[in-house]
Amino acid sequence: MALKTRGDYLAALRQLRPNIYKFGELIEDVTTHPATKRTVESHARNYDAASDPELEEIYTATSIFSGEKILRWNSMMQEPDDLIMNMKMKRQNYRRTGSCTGAVCVGWNAMNVMWAVSSEIDKEQGTDYQARLKDWILSAEEKGLTVAGALTDAKGNRSLKPSEQPDPDTNLRVVEERDDGIIIRGAKLMICGTAASQEIFLLSGGIYGEADQDFALACVVPRDIEGLTIVEATRPSDRRELEDTADVETPDTGVTQGWLLFEDVFVPRERVFMCKEYKYTAKCIQYFTTNYRACIGACVCGQGDVMIGASVLMARANGLSAKTFSDKLVSMSLNNTVTYGLGVGAVALGFKHSSGSYFADPHTAHANKVMVATLPYEVKRLTQEIGGGIVETGCMPSYKDFTNPQYGHLIQKCLKAGEGSAESRFKAARLSEWLTIGAGVPGCMHGGGSPDGAKLVVRATTPLEEYADYAKKIINIEEEIAEPPKKLKK
Amino acid sequence: MALKTRGDYLAALRQLRPNIYKFGELIEDVTTHPATKRTVESHARNYDAASDPELEEIYTATSIFSGEKILRWNSMMQEPDDLIMNMKMKRQNYRRTGSCTGAVCVGWNAMNVMWAVSSEIDKEQGTDYQARLKDWILSAEEKGLTVAGALTDAKGNRSLKPSEQPDPDTNLRVVEERDDGIIIRGAKLMICGTAASQEIFLLSGGIYGEADQDFALACVVPRDIEGLTIVEATRPSDRRELEDTADVETPDTGVTQGWLLFEDVFVPRERVFMCKEYKYTAKCIQYFTTNYRACIGACVCGQGDVMIGASVLMARANGLSAKTFSDKLVSMSLNNTVTYGLGVGAVALGFKHSSGSYFADPHTAHANKVMVATLPYEVKRLTQEIGGGIVETGCMPSYKDFTNPQYGHLIQKCLKAGEGSAESRFKAARLSEWLTIGAGVPGCMHGGGSPDGAKLVVRATTPLEEYADYAKKIINIEEEIAEPPKKLKK
Amino acid sequence: MALKTRGDYLAALRQLRPNIYKFGELIEDVTTHPATKRTVESHARNYDAASDPELEEIYTATSIFSGEKILRWNSMMQEPDDLIMNMKMKRQNYRRTGSCTGAVCVGWNAMNVMWAVSSEIDKEQGTDYQARLKDWILSAEEKGLTVAGALTDAKGNRSLKPSEQPDPDTNLRVVEERDDGIIIRGAKLMICGTAASQEIFLLSGGIYGEADQDFALACVVPRDIEGLTIVEATRPSDRRELEDTADVETPDTGVTQGWLLFEDVFVPRERVFMCKEYKYTAKCIQYFTTNYRACIGACVCGQGDVMIGASVLMARANGLSAKTFSDKLVSMSLNNTVTYGLGVGAVALGFKHSSGSYFADPHTAHANKVMVATLPYEVKRLTQEIGGGIVETGCMPSYKDFTNPQYGHLIQKCLKAGEGSAESRFKAARLSEWLTIGAGVPGCMHGGGSPDGAKLVVRATTPLEEYADYAKKIINIEEEIAEPPKKLKK
Amino acid sequence: MALKTRGDYLAALRQLRPNIYKFGELIEDVTTHPATKRTVESHARNYDAASDPELEEIYTATSIFSGEKILRWNSMMQEPDDLIMNMKMKRQNYRRTGSCTGAVCVGWNAMNVMWAVSSEIDKEQGTDYQARLKDWILSAEEKGLTVAGALTDAKGNRSLKPSEQPDPDTNLRVVEERDDGIIIRGAKLMICGTAASQEIFLLSGGIYGEADQDFALACVVPRDIEGLTIVEATRPSDRRELEDTADVETPDTGVTQGWLLFEDVFVPRERVFMCKEYKYTAKCIQYFTTNYRACIGACVCGQGDVMIGASVLMARANGLSAKTFSDKLVSMSLNNTVTYGLGVGAVALGFKHSSGSYFADPHTAHANKVMVATLPYEVKRLTQEIGGGIVETGCMPSYKDFTNPQYGHLIQKCLKAGEGSAESRFKAARLSEWLTIGAGVPGCMHGGGSPDGAKLVVRATTPLEEYADYAKKIINIEEEIAEPPKKLKK
Repeated sequence: MALKTRGDYLAALRQLRPNIYKFGELIEDVTTHPATKRTVESHARNYDAASDPELEEIYTATSIFSGEKILRWNSMMQEPDDLIMNMKMKRQNYRRTGSCTGAVCVGWNAMNVMWAVSSEIDKEQGTDYQARLKDWILSAEEKGLTVAGALTDAKGNRSLKPSEQPDPDTNLRVVEERDDGIIIRGAKLMICGTAASQEIFLLSGGIYGEADQDFALACVVPRDIEGLTIVEATRPSDRRELEDTADVETPDTGVTQGWLLFEDVFVPRERVFMCKEYKYTAKCIQYFTTNYRACIGACVCGQGDVMIGASVLMARANGLSAKTFSDKLVSMSLNNTVTYGLGVGAVALGFKHSSGSYFADPHTAHANKVMVATLPYEVKRLTQEIGGGIVETGCMPSYKDFTNPQYGHLIQKCLKAGEGSAESRFKAARLSEWLTIGAGVPGCMHGGGSPDGAKLVVRATTPLEEYADYAKKIINIEEEIAEPPKKLKK
Repeated sequence: MALKTRGDYLAALRQLRPNIYKFGELIEDVTTHPATKRTVESHARNYDAASDPELEEIYTATSIFSGEKILRWNSMMQEPDDLIMNMKMKRQNYRRTGSCTGAVCVGWNAMNVMWAVSSEIDKEQGTDYQARLKDWILSAEEKGLTVAGALTDAKGNRSLKPSEQPDPDTNLRVVEERDDGIIIRGAKLMICGTAASQEIFLLSGGIYGEADQDFALACVVPRDIEGLTIVEATRPSDRRELEDTADVETPDTGVTQGWLLFEDVFVPRERVFMCKEYKYTAKCIQYFTTNYRACIGACVCGQGDVMIGASVLMARANGLSAKTFSDKLVSMSLNNTVTYGLGVGAVALGFKHSSGSYFADPHTAHANKVMVATLPYEVKRLTQEIGGGIVETGCMPSYKDFTNPQYGHLIQKCLKAGEGSAESRFKAARLSEWLTIGAGVPGCMHGGGSPDGAKLVVRATTPLEEYADYAKKIINIEEEIAEPPKKLKK
Repeated sequence: MALKTRGDYLAALRQLRPNIYKFGELIEDVTTHPATKRTVESHARNYDAASDPELEEIYTATSIFSGEKILRWNSMMQEPDDLIMNMKMKRQNYRRTGSCTGAVCVGWNAMNVMWAVSSEIDKEQGTDYQARLKDWILSAEEKGLTVAGALTDAKGNRSLKPSEQPDPDTNLRVVEERDDGIIIRGAKLMICGTAASQEIFLLSGGIYGEADQDFALACVVPRDIEGLTIVEATRPSDRRELEDTADVETPDTGVTQGWLLFEDVFVPRERVFMCKEYKYTAKCIQYFTTNYRACIGACVCGQGDVMIGASVLMARANGLSAKTFSDKLVSMSLNNTVTYGLGVGAVALGFKHSSGSYFADPHTAHANKVMVATLPYEVKRLTQEIGGGIVETGCMPSYKDFTNPQYGHLIQKCLKAGEGSAESRFKAARLSEWLTIGAGVPGCMHGGGSPDGAKLVVRATTPLEEYADYAKKIINIEEEIAEPPKKLKK
Repeated sequence: MALKTRGDYLAALRQLRPNIYKFGELIEDVTTHPATKRTVESHARNYDAASDPELEEIYTATSIFSGEKILRWNSMMQEPDDLIMNMKMKRQNYRRTGSCTGAVCVGWNAMNVMWAVSSEIDKEQGTDYQARLKDWILSAEEKGLTVAGALTDAKGNRSLKPSEQPDPDTNLRVVEERDDGIIIRGAKLMICGTAASQEIFLLSGGIYGEADQDFALACVVPRDIEGLTIVEATRPSDRRELEDTADVETPDTGVTQGWLLFEDVFVPRERVFMCKEYKYTAKCIQYFTTNYRACIGACVCGQGDVMIGASVLMARANGLSAKTFSDKLVSMSLNNTVTYGLGVGAVALGFKHSSGSYFADPHTAHANKVMVATLPYEVKRLTQEIGGGIVETGCMPSYKDFTNPQYGHLIQKCLKAGEGSAESRFKAARLSEWLTIGAGVPGCMHGGGSPDGAKLVVRATTPLEEYADYAKKIINIEEEIAEPPKKLKK
């Protein structure tokens, strides 16, 4: 079975029904439309890498089912090294595209999570979810699918449960169960890489009780399934991508985030891997977040690598040696390494599920999420500090001005400074802007859940009583020192 | 003499010769063109405030020359309270516009600096600069001028002096001295509020020796002076301002930064306040930066106030009490207060120049610059943390999608969450985006010079030997502990 | 009236009844006992400074009552400059002693606070407290008193009010009111500089309601008053002070903190300035903390100055130029300047009380407390980083080993490194240890109250609704966005 | 072969020749003398753990030579799990003793390092070092030795190489090579756990060239070898250990750091594993530091666990629920987890040496060293913040006062607050003090080398050019952007 190529991938995308909108207009061909072609290009590079001798170790794997060589992002993660390879691929992806390639991340993770959870449900409820999932995985392996993943619902009022929302459509739910499948309705928001995906893995976005059982679901749908409308979010500086100067002002790559609007969508039975088994939503979230939050350190690190690189370019383009900023570059590198290395540590401290799936250590993984929501901001700050004023606020005229026949030569005189041409300095500054306050900024703060959520897990997995016991033993306190009774509190 | 009003101001702007470009096109009327009308609106609000009973104490002052009530930003700063009022006005401006109103900041500061420096030059060189400056100030008071200030040159290669640059036009310089004035040539970049200004105060951007004497200059020019071409920089998300939905997606206010390209511009003698007296450029920079860096804490604080406000709105719009985020709001407030209060501290520890001008304490002011280049990034991070994913990367569809007849209602369902309408939540999220990674981000890192430059001053004004002496006395070391001889170092 | 001198001060201390204990033993003469003579020396240096031409401007003032020159720490603070001078004196005191001179701080502040509060009580309750206080102040001025101040009670269970404590003696209270005075009982803990004080100003440590009215009190007592037992706390490395090598291993100066145990102490009427007027305890705390927390920035900064100095010494003693650590020294200086400058800013933004007393701006002052509880820890960390291993944990043999006839010469060989003698390096390292983890560490975290308490004030003085309004106006939101109703919350 | 027990260990220590001094006096029996018995107790607990069913997996291992069960700290580290077990043991040790057990750390690491380096030397120089080392390891396994390790020399002037020092004895060196062994002379300082060790592994402390070849050495000596004098350092609050109240005021465990003074010590040939092969000193340092700095994260984390525990105790003893401080406890836990998890990450990313030894990834390990020198300071700060004033500066009277017949009952009244007795609160506060500014503070800043040294490695292992290439490719810059030529720089 030959690995799918960039060509196969682009051809597959072109065959999908147009159902993606941006700025109020339908996008006919995601591979060529300026609003989506960049994220498609980002993902296409994965296929390139899979056949690149230097990168194929990272971008391909061996199927545990067929023993054949498959695309890494279609593989099962059953050993620590599988997760570390996931991290290495994420870091490479950022290094090679500058931003998030979400359609080889969340769906892949969800698939692995449901491998474990479906085995638990099957065992306890007598269902056959895992068998269905295996069939789908085999087809995904064969087709070399790029699969977005969608957990985040529109949510509605954060103080209310899904079933309490005035509008039930704010969270994706099962509105009808049929023999041949289910009908779902609602919205999943801010889904990375949708426009570059062939299919979308849908998974419950919260931990639900019985009252919210309709919201407990896991399934996969084609991106162009009937009843699904996708609207792309707009991000700072992304309108530049629509202009004819875009190839100079922005990278060829990029990230998009779609809002997925489901209006009574039918999902056939064989694509459904959980349906109303609300008791397992906690497991879904637990397994999903632990691997996601371990691995996201690699994303942040990879983009940090590029910020270091862009800063080196800016320093030189300004006429200064990169050595001038050695302290700052080391700080950037340290921040990057914390999120990457701590993620690897979470993996190394992980555990194997009875289904074969491997999961990172929750305490360490969630701690990493907090780092991921903090440290990159300092890396961005330093990128702006090293780059100078034109980087900080993207404070340069447009490329149309750069090439204006009347005064463009004056702009160019102003931009020529140290090493390289005026245009290179223009590009390096735009890249730094794009990475720090532009369209290349990924959602490291809230992607995969908020840092406050992660802190709750860190709190729950820090054994305070055990630690208090260590302290007591060391200083020879023998009496009990318990929490004070509640009545004492005002 | 009646104070000038918003109407007077706008009328004055409309009479200026069009010489500002953006995206390759000439802007005919800055007061109505979507690329410039926001910064004009920001500045027009100053005139409103000057006649607002609640704000006039801040926005007006008494002329030390005429004793008449004048606009605050045309007044001399001769007492600590004058600088503190400057700070209060800056903070109000950010609170009332969300971003930088540069044309009532730099020019005003430069005028005050040159009042002191011109008196020094006159005394030592027998010139009459201060008398010329006084005449201009009197006319500025009378006309109620809004005056941008320009120090930052294009600079060119950061490792070379102005006179060593391959292209001498990378820094603004005097190319000819004539009896009736001077001819200047070169470029000043990233000048805030140019489009909203009536005149521009030009001041040397560096400390120069004899070889660079041509670059030592101070003068004021009308914004539309012959030979001056201005090109506006483009910033993340500012293309939204050009669209017909801009009134929903962006504030009515805003900031612009112009590139000023001077091609042999004649400046008449009476508008020249320094010409080649290179020895005084150090004083210009020293006086300018100390007041600028004390007061900039108020800008950062004022924008931080708005970020707190926007975060409160987002929390509630998400369905949560602001109390949920009390710790984060306190952290934001603390960061804001450090930059504001430390700036006030620098003012209170300042000194009076023999000319009457008052200057903040350099050590404290430059320390504040370092805070200003650091703390607001944390405030932005927290704004994104509180606001959620749609704030972090502006992850929402455009307003065109929001109102799309086919699927707009679905977008609106997704956006309705807690308190207020879907549209209010949309607006609050766009505001938070605009403040943290959009067109409202001011240049607190490099504006008024880099934090590394500030650290050099902090280093130079920290008396290490005196401090070592305190230590020696406390622990009774009596021998000398000097710097090791250089030869010992490898 | 001649200013009191060091000699007068020491003589006065010697005349006090011995009532201070440490390590289970009574201290007969605080001026010579090794456990107390260091704090006495610290305070004696204030008297030296008052007659030092270079320092007298800081250490003396003019009595607003008599117009005579008095000791600064007996003066009223009625103008911003009075508070800034207070700060300058605090900074000098740290520079000249390395630690806290608490007996010219809290009592002085309390006196000023009660000047304002007593005027309020008198006006509303018809009492004559201010007249009594004035009499005492006049005598303090004349005697040049050094007056400790005591607010912190033993407190007992933090979840209970004073009147609810199982043991009522955990907080100082009025147990009997008599015509000629009051009887007080209870404990004040961790009172700095008690051993060096002549009198002690006692003030309520909390904000009390009617049930706790017995705990509302203000008065002054001689340090040796009948019924008062003082026990000194022991601090890390303070046992070194008892040894015959102490003059090499520790400074001649130092800080002590006493536990004050009151067993039915009679305080005559003329020394009582508040008695059970519980409604005014909030004012006491508010006025006290705002000035205390503005000024404490100067303490922290002054000790930071000495840490910079000690670090310079250590670098050179290790054989390195101080320039090697330029970045770290600048960081230290920045941290110091933030707490000092922000404190000055709080003063400059303050307000004048109707009684004449001047108070710093609460919001800024409490923000400064948070900085004071955070930034010095980084300065200490850097002191340990620059100094090397022997500084970090005080990792050197004792001076007895240094001078041991058998192997002392080997220790000395090990200690001789760069500039200066082995002994100087030994002393510089001991000083750094003393400043960072030894007996010279003052209580900047909890001194004057906890940072969490300060954050509550910062929160209360940050006008969230006003800030939300700014945000709404900027983005044109016109509807109300209120706190969500409570019932929505789970 | 039965594992050695606590009894065996103590008996072995008692048989050593007394050669350790503190406060100028010889310590006859390290197992009973108050200055050393605590560190001996700390190490004895390792033997207890080795036979504790719950801990033996961590504290024992299987000999790769004999296949027998041995003590963990005598084993070879050849797989990632061996290093992770090293980390787990370190973390447990801190949890069970509160501080550093240096004699099961450095010597063990050095042995593993020399296993790799000796194989390299043997291969290239034809020596037989590895065989000698193997013999010694076998005997260490059999005797269950506790082995301190010594790298840090007295160093002398930091600007000079060892051979350039005025006094050659400031660094340990080979003064004579004989057929049967070598004579060494000089000083190793600040060696943890010396008093608890049976033998000491000596290793070069720097990277040396030919001129410094005499300083290139590796060998093991009995702690009581002829010619070796050991003097213990004194640390803040360690004099408390000498008093009869020590069992209440300090833990039974503790850390000591010895200064090792070698005066012409003969080391027999079979105990010498490197002698003047200066070219390999870089490898020694590289291998040593990478494993040391990966694993030290576990030490810092383990002590952090105890600080969390002590803080929980203090909160409750003060009368407050630990929940009150949830945010702070989470921050502490996060800091702990970063150093632990990042260390594990460094291990997981490591590499296997041809000799079988396994080493952590240098880039990640050195990054961890920087965290280790920073984050624990924040954990300590939070311990002091939660604990209150009596924790911050250890601000309590001594236990002699606590039990004083005259006023002890008053002290006890003051100390009784919330949960637990007055004595428990006293102990918990003393523990927090001991952990943060007392005798339990380990040398995380400089132990195993300075963070500045680690930053140099981070810098060297951050591939700037590769990262610049990523940036160039993303933004389509094709020309070279090289470092500017040196001549341009001033």
